[in-house]
Amino acid sequence: MRRSTTEVLERTRVMVEPALIEAVGRLHPSLALPVRYHFGWIDPAGVPLPNPRYGKGIRPTLALLSAEAVGAAAGVALPGALAVEIVHNFSLVHDDIIDNDPERRHRATVWKAFGAGDAIIAGDAMMLLGLELLLDRPTPPRVAAAADLAGATASMIAGQHMDMSFDRSGEVDVDLSWEMVSLKTGALLAHASAVGAILAGAPEDTVHRLRTFGLELGRGFQAIDDLLGIWGDPSVTGKPAGNDLRERKKSIPVAVALASGSEAGERLADLYAREHLDDDRIMAAAALVEEAGGRDATVVAARDCMRRAADALGGADIDPQVAGELEDLAAFVVERDF
Amino acid sequence: MRRSTTEVLERTRVMVEPALIEAVGRLHPSLALPVRYHFGWIDPAGVPLPNPRYGKGIRPTLALLSAEAVGAAAGVALPGALAVEIVHNFSLVHDDIIDNDPERRHRATVWKAFGAGDAIIAGDAMMLLGLELLLDRPTPPRVAAAADLAGATASMIAGQHMDMSFDRSGEVDVDLSWEMVSLKTGALLAHASAVGAILAGAPEDTVHRLRTFGLELGRGFQAIDDLLGIWGDPSVTGKPAGNDLRERKKSIPVAVALASGSEAGERLADLYAREHLDDDRIMAAAALVEEAGGRDATVVAARDCMRRAADALGGADIDPQVAGELEDLAAFVVERDF
Repeated sequence: MRRSTTEVLERTRVMVEPALIEAVGRLHPSLALPVRYHFGWIDPAGVPLPNPRYGKGIRPTLALLSAEAVGAAAGVALPGALAVEIVHNFSLVHDDIIDNDPERRHRATVWKAFGAGDAIIAGDAMMLLGLELLLDRPTPPRVAAAADLAGATASMIAGQHMDMSFDRSGEVDVDLSWEMVSLKTGALLAHASAVGAILAGAPEDTVHRLRTFGLELGRGFQAIDDLLGIWGDPSVTGKPAGNDLRERKKSIPVAVALASGSEAGERLADLYAREHLDDDRIMAAAALVEEAGGRDATVVAARDCMRRAADALGGADIDPQVAGELEDLAAFVVERDF
Repeated sequence: MRRSTTEVLERTRVMVEPALIEAVGRLHPSLALPVRYHFGWIDPAGVPLPNPRYGKGIRPTLALLSAEAVGAAAGVALPGALAVEIVHNFSLVHDDIIDNDPERRHRATVWKAFGAGDAIIAGDAMMLLGLELLLDRPTPPRVAAAADLAGATASMIAGQHMDMSFDRSGEVDVDLSWEMVSLKTGALLAHASAVGAILAGAPEDTVHRLRTFGLELGRGFQAIDDLLGIWGDPSVTGKPAGNDLRERKKSIPVAVALASGSEAGERLADLYAREHLDDDRIMAAAALVEEAGGRDATVVAARDCMRRAADALGGADIDPQVAGELEDLAAFVVERDF
């Protein structure tokens, strides 16, 4: 019987969280502190929090489902689920330093709570820990999973760097923005959606279709994230309203608006060239992005991604019930409020 | 015939440098820029430098010799030599941000030239690139080398974090300082000194003895580096005189002096507790470290490390000529001016 997204996310929490706590325990004690803090298990002084949370667990859920999608037990995917969650969180810790973000999930970011030095090194340790979990007992499927993770992480890093370059340059091409999104967000979600199948020894064609599902989900996810970065409710996103505009991010809606050739797009470019963006100018910028069609185009694009994601799951080798659960999860990711 | 250290270092340059340039070329072009700058091949604008240098190449030389030590061709070690050199340089790029060092090898550090964000992400990309070079074609020896590199890198990171904690805490234990050095500097040199043998499929006992050689070499190397950090000639080290004292580093000579129980040690502790260390106070601190025996003890300890390193190479499985070349290289590392 097809399980609800709530059920599969809860199942992930039960399977992955204890293993994640154990894996983080392998770090040197002083290094584990900022990592445990980042995952929401403790406060900066090391005191356990009453209701620990580490995020929704989208990536490990994809990993577990991708094993079941090819007929294997979810447990086969566990090392991959842990590794991808840890590597994803490494990227959050470093990105928060780079983007100068003071808050994440309504809490001070690691660099804000522990200093940039600790945040850099905690992130380094997390990236390595993820790879070590797969290389520990190097069976051929685990080695293949580790190599896939390393490649996906390298793509993610290249995407983050493209994003930074966009922020510094005057113009941005919409196609290049999508390429950046494919690398920055898509690559790791593509890995997450395939790693269970890789660990289960599934044929390359099946792995490829699961990877495509994850890539399109990632593109859709980032498009929604870009919308939330402008119009998201701060009490939900944990970030100040209009944060991406304040940071002059060339996100997808902004790139579309700037490339629209409309008057609103030109006025947006003028605003982005200003020394300082106060709250009034940020509200004006958000309205201009919408007027220039950036909001609607991004919503449509996100839905197209979801359709392509679902299409990739068609085929005899993927369990149709699990395919349905993967589609539900994708819808859950897209249908956040914005 | 036993080759001179100059010859083996030059051989490394000829074998490794073109492969290193090619490996860095696998990075996304915008990411490759700060990496190429770091290696000394280009200026910050991307213009090639007339006399490119990337350091002495101690680690790749150890890697190549460790293959020859077990009777294999040096080329067997090449992917390991590249990987360890790249991972070592990742650590330099991140450490320079963490330590707030503006200069390295008489040039602006990557964060100083490109900003901390680019330096963080360039370092991340370098760490991954090193591992990817070994995981690319995952034969069992390459997978073993990758796992060994990941473990050594994790140790190095833990050591760097211990070092940072020491800088913040009032007291430091001399034994703990040596443990920190074993992790921070020893682990990666231990890997470098064994990876060629791992890639050649040498027995574990032989790999272990080469690893011990590298660990002791690393401890000796760091002891000398600590001496250079206080008494080194700025025109040789590329860092301001007394830099480690200005940063209040609890390096080995300082830890020995602080733990000496002498009057000089107490006066040093008082100086380290001051708000600001001007040049006069740094000169006074250096004199106190020497008076408290920190300098002599560190010189003696460095020589003991070198003796243990040489002892580890005794045994039928290690080519005696190559063992001699490894010892010469170790001596070259220790006998820098300070």
